[in-house]
Formats: sequence, C-alpha cells, structure tokens
Amino acid sequence: MSSQLPRSPLAPAQFPALPEIDGISLYVASAQIKYQGRDDVMLMLAEQGAVSAGMFTKSKTASAAVDTSRAALATGASRAIISNSGNSNAFTGRKGAASVASYCAVLADRLDLPAEQLMVASTGVIGEVLDARLMIDAFDALLEGQASWHQAAQAICTTDTFAKGATCQIELDGVQVTLNGIAKGSGMIAPDMATMLCYVGTDAAISQSCLQQLLSRAIDKSFHCITVDSDTSTSDSVYAMASQKAGNRPIDSLDTDSARTFEAALTELLTELAIQVVKDGEGATKLIKISVSHAADEQDARAIALSVANSPLVKTAIAGEDANWGRIVMAVGKSGALIDRDRLAISIGGITIAKQGEPVEGYDEAPVTAHMKGQQIDIGIDIGQPDGAGHACIYSCDLTHGYISINADYRS
Amino acid sequence: MSSQLPRSPLAPAQFPALPEIDGISLYVASAQIKYQGRDDVMLMLAEQGAVSAGMFTKSKTASAAVDTSRAALATGASRAIISNSGNSNAFTGRKGAASVASYCAVLADRLDLPAEQLMVASTGVIGEVLDARLMIDAFDALLEGQASWHQAAQAICTTDTFAKGATCQIELDGVQVTLNGIAKGSGMIAPDMATMLCYVGTDAAISQSCLQQLLSRAIDKSFHCITVDSDTSTSDSVYAMASQKAGNRPIDSLDTDSARTFEAALTELLTELAIQVVKDGEGATKLIKISVSHAADEQDARAIALSVANSPLVKTAIAGEDANWGRIVMAVGKSGALIDRDRLAISIGGITIAKQGEPVEGYDEAPVTAHMKGQQIDIGIDIGQPDGAGHACIYSCDLTHGYISINADYRS
Repeated sequence: MSSQLPRSPLAPAQFPALPEIDGISLYVASAQIKYQGRDDVMLMLAEQGAVSAGMFTKSKTASAAVDTSRAALATGASRAIISNSGNSNAFTGRKGAASVASYCAVLADRLDLPAEQLMVASTGVIGEVLDARLMIDAFDALLEGQASWHQAAQAICTTDTFAKGATCQIELDGVQVTLNGIAKGSGMIAPDMATMLCYVGTDAAISQSCLQQLLSRAIDKSFHCITVDSDTSTSDSVYAMASQKAGNRPIDSLDTDSARTFEAALTELLTELAIQVVKDGEGATKLIKISVSHAADEQDARAIALSVANSPLVKTAIAGEDANWGRIVMAVGKSGALIDRDRLAISIGGITIAKQGEPVEGYDEAPVTAHMKGQQIDIGIDIGQPDGAGHACIYSCDLTHGYISINADYRS
Repeated sequence: MSSQLPRSPLAPAQFPALPEIDGISLYVASAQIKYQGRDDVMLMLAEQGAVSAGMFTKSKTASAAVDTSRAALATGASRAIISNSGNSNAFTGRKGAASVASYCAVLADRLDLPAEQLMVASTGVIGEVLDARLMIDAFDALLEGQASWHQAAQAICTTDTFAKGATCQIELDGVQVTLNGIAKGSGMIAPDMATMLCYVGTDAAISQSCLQQLLSRAIDKSFHCITVDSDTSTSDSVYAMASQKAGNRPIDSLDTDSARTFEAALTELLTELAIQVVKDGEGATKLIKISVSHAADEQDARAIALSVANSPLVKTAIAGEDANWGRIVMAVGKSGALIDRDRLAISIGGITIAKQGEPVEGYDEAPVTAHMKGQQIDIGIDIGQPDGAGHACIYSCDLTHGYISINADYRS
C-alpha cells in the first residue's frame, strides 16, 4: 500500500478474518521493484487437481502478463499465479514478454510445473520493462514459508490505501465450502471487464467450465457495476482457483442447486470486493450508488447509470455535498438512452426531488442536504417508460482534489 | 463573466476587433437573473430578409429554450434570438415553457415580429424556472440602443473567465463578406452537438438551406472536435444569421466556389471559437491537441482521440506536466477501436516516445518534459493500420484542482 497516501475515509475498520483454504497456498516476498520496505510479489498456488478460471481486461493494449495468463488458462491445467505490484510490464513489447518468459521459467522449475501453465499478474507503471532479475532474486524468500490472505492482499496493492478482502461460507451437500477473495485497485477503474486485480480461492469441488462460467456471470453483476474514473487498465484481471477439497459433490452443471448456491456466494463475494475498490477510489470521500428503474431495457438502464456515474460534473457536485440534481438530469440526457424528459423522476437519499420532468412543488432541500453530508449517496433515477423493465445499479465515488493530487503528481 | 474566477492563463491578450455586420443588430441589458452588476440578456436581431440556421444539443433532456428555437427555425422566418445567462430554464416542465412563452410574447410585440419566430437561448442553473418578469422588465433597457459584439459576448458568459469572439473576412464575387462569431462555454463541454452557445452573424447573401448545411458541416469540424469534461449540456446551441446585405451573388448551391469559400471561412471561425472555449475549460492550464493517424477509418480515429481527450488519468498527468505516455496507451486501448498494440506509436511534442508497441530505445525524457511545461501539449498517436486512412484531431484541456474547486463549490 502507498505509504504517502492517507487511508480512505471510506475504508472498513479492519481487514476481515479470512480462513485458510484447504489446497491453496499463498506466498509473499519483497522484490523492491518499486516499493521499498514492503512485499510486492505474491504467489497463489493450488495443489494438483485444482482448476482455475480467469477474466481479463478488454483493452486492446493488454499487458504481457495478460497475454501469458490467457495462454496458461487455455492449457486447462493452470494452478499457479505469480503476481507483482509496482510495474505492470505493459506496452513493453518483446522485451517485456521475454522478461515474463525468463522469470516464469525459473519459477516453474522451482515449483516443478510446466512453465506454460503459469499465470502472471502485474500492476503498476506502464511502459517500463519489468526486470526479471528482481523477480528471480525474490523467489528464495518467496518460497520460504506460507503467507496469510491478509499478507497477500497487502502485497498486491499499489496506490490502494487499504488491503481488500472478503470471505463467504456456504453449505453444499452437507459440507462447508469457503470462498475467499482479495483485490487491489483504486484508479483506472471502469466497467468493461475486470477492472483491477482480484484473486478468489475456494475449496469447492467444481469443474473448470462451471467455474469459468460462474466467474463470468458474477463479474457481470459486481465488477462490471463499478466505476471510479471511466479508465480501463491494460492489466486488470480476475482469477479464481478451486482446490476441489471441500468434499461436496463436484459441481459439473450450472443447472443445479449447488451451482446456484455457489454462484450467489461468488457474486456476493465479488460485490463486496468491488465496493471496497470503489471505496478506495483515488481521492474518494463518498460512495455513490446509482439506481435506475423503468428504463426501456437493461442496456438503456446501464447506459444511463454509467453516464451519471462517470459524469465529472455529478461527481464534483457530490464532492461538494451539493444536491445539484440538474447535473444528474444533464447526465441522463446525454446517455443516448431512450428518455422522455417529462416522465423522468430523480431522488436523492430516497427523497423525490423532481418528477414528470420538473422540480417537485415545495421541495425542501434540507433533508437532501443532510443526506449529501453522509458517506454514501443514493441517487434514484426513474425513467418512467411505460412497461419499462430496465433496471441497473452502479457504484461510483466522488471526484475530489485528492484524485487530482494523486494523479497529477504520481506516476502509477 | 464570473467575477470570482481568475482569468484563464490560456486566454488571449484581448478580445479581437469585430466589425459591425450590416443588417444585424445586437442589444444587451442587465436583468439581474443571477449575476449582479453586469449584462445578462442579449438580443441578436437581423433585418427583414435575413435567414437563420441553428444546431442544438442532442441531449434528451433539452431545455424549453431549445424546444422553442427548434420550432422557431422550422417557421423558416426567424431573425431574432433572445438570450440570457444565469438560468438555463432546463427541466422546468410546463412552468418553464410558460415562462418562455410569456416573455417571448412581450418581446415579439415590441419587435413587431410573430412570437413563434423568436428563437431563445438560455444558459445557467438547471431546474429553476426562469422568472419571465425579470426578462420583461429588462426589455426597455435592452432596446434603448445597440451594443457591440464585445458587449454581446460578455452578456452571454456564465463561468467563462473571458469573452470569446472571432471574425473572418472573405471576398465573394468581388465584394467583401464578413463573418463574426461569439461564444460562451467552459464546462459541460463535449462533442455530440453544439456544446455551448455560439452566435454567428454574417452579411453574406446565402439561402437558408445552404446556411443550415454549411453550419452543420462546419460544426462537425470544429465544436464536435473539442471536449472539456465529456459532459453535454441540456441547452447548448449554435446559431447563424445571414443578413444578405453584402452584395455577393446569393449562395444557393453547395457546389459552387462561393459556397466552398464561405464554408472554409465559417469552419475557420468556429474552430477559432471552439479552441477559445477549450482554453477557458474550467480550471484549464493547458490546451491539449490530440492527433490520431492511420486508424482503420475516421470513426475509429475519432473514438481513439476522444478516449484520450476524455481520460481523467491522461488529463491529470498533463496537469502535472508528467510525460506519462503509459496512460495514453491505456486510453487508446480502451477506446473500442481496432488497435494492433505492436504497431502503435506515440509522440509528445513531435518526439516519438514509443513505436511498434514498445518504448523507443534510448528515449530521452528531457525534451518531452520541456514540452510538457508549455501551454499547448501535442499528442500524436499513430495506429499504424496498414492502409489505415482514419485521421482525427481533437482539442481538450487538462484536469486540475481548479476544475474541482469550480464544480464542487459552484452551482452553475
């Protein structure tokens, strides 16, 4: 975590207690790639028989790490992810790819795994080749002993002001199944695919195909519903590993109660992590929840919610605790969605401020102003389309001087 | 203009000398709608026989003023625009529309014009009904005597820190033709149609249809190529009036030398005004010019340029005078356009920093760092698509503490 930045005012009081996951081990070390005096390398390793899934940035300038992980997943036998913070090794061409190949070969040898099965996650500055030697020199310390989920969560941070973790337990076939997740990310956060680094470990018995499909669905309902600054990283990825150790009957079809229970838990886990990421949005002082109802369809609802969530004028008004709903109307209007101005209703903190295209008669700003002073701002937008079934919920954060300070001065 | 805000460091030394336009009169007055001690009402009136054209925001929550102007233009006989600053009268429903109808009826009567031919432009806070009485009470003072283009440019300002004007003279058929333009706007500036208020007056003889088509084309190449904050106003409009007095042979076909000369002049005029608007971008300290070449097509080139122009991470890096080209790569990657990472080249200030998908060997940051300290930052992005003919040029500005201060504290 950044030592220069104050902890987000929205941070949880402490890192949650994450239990160990049978069959999955974590390791951390300090390679001093960029950060001094802290761990910056993390290895997540599952025992033989585990399955892995992943989803990656849609960026057309994806990093060497993302290329490598995609290929490793395609082997169907990946069970290890080597991760570093401080350098994303993105846009580093052949030299960057050669660096990854070089340290992966060494690590694979140490782990007695085929190198092509190793997944790689890197985050940090773009355009500087990651020095493979720094990684390789850290492997001795890395493999010395296991780390906790909390230590792993700390090692993957960059400008994060707090480590992010969540855990969830469910019962499948009479046995307890655990899902743990850790994540990093606070800038370059936008929907359109995996918007930071996230690692999920579970002892569930589940097929690779089911894990991949359920991961994809859960991301749609969690990480794809958050935005900090509308920017999309070249590196960001969500990984899941299932060790198969819990003793449940293996989930090998999506059309089962077990699959549905697992999906609900995974979605809850990722949503909790996604909200933590927004709460650590660079400079964020307020979490913004934007709920759109009665749009023509889901796609319109999502477009409207994102237009509001990403509007600099809405985000700065909220930073200023100003119930400037006119800017919300503006952002709805520019969304490109089907809007009938004179059916539109806007609420803040549950209080309807405007309906049928005009301010509510006798509307009193005081209770809304009080809501604006809180740490979570709820914006409701009812599009009022007759028979409009489109609903969406997007989380964002305010845009403050802190965002400018971090990003105008700091080379991430 | 705002009395609280310091003049933009990018502002021109002074307002240019705009000549009078034969057949077009300007009037200003103070209605004290929001601003005290300055003019906030402006009337642009052409003599009988003039033709008008206009283009309006694509926002689905457009204001009553925009509705009114669209209808007035449709009569084919509009030759007057009544304008106010300080209240946009947007999202004010039937009451807002009634207010417009009320003061337009009075003004039309004073001007001896059919009320339905009166165009209306309003800018300022959203969601508050514009008090028709304030407008009506100002009409005596308004019609007392004519104003200069400079005075008119001042009366239409809101958070602008300087009045914006430009002029251009051409020769058609041996006679001199003049085009004047004034504009306002500094926030809620984004492409997707008329992005602020702009008024063009010319003495050219030109048909209504030709004026409308040439205005539309010129806007595509000027106002549609700028962005400050990606937000699109509910009110913004570009108007043009041609008094037919210059003595040139009337332009009644686009396929003539006169039309081409006029189009070039109009495009130049609007480009000059558009750049002035960006230079007055809220909090702007640097003008950013983003040139994209060799994209697959024009649409891709534009998508890439806008993705970079609107990226908060690029804009804050430039505010911090940081040649952080990695963020440019990121913004190119998220644009959705066809990109081959390993063909991409990036230059800043004309110096190639990265090509073929990796940093240039031995690249020295010093000359680029020097460029970053200047007031105009030139970013070149060569997509390198074989046979890619897509080019685009977009102007933006940096994202600074000033933007946050203005928008977190000020209800526009």
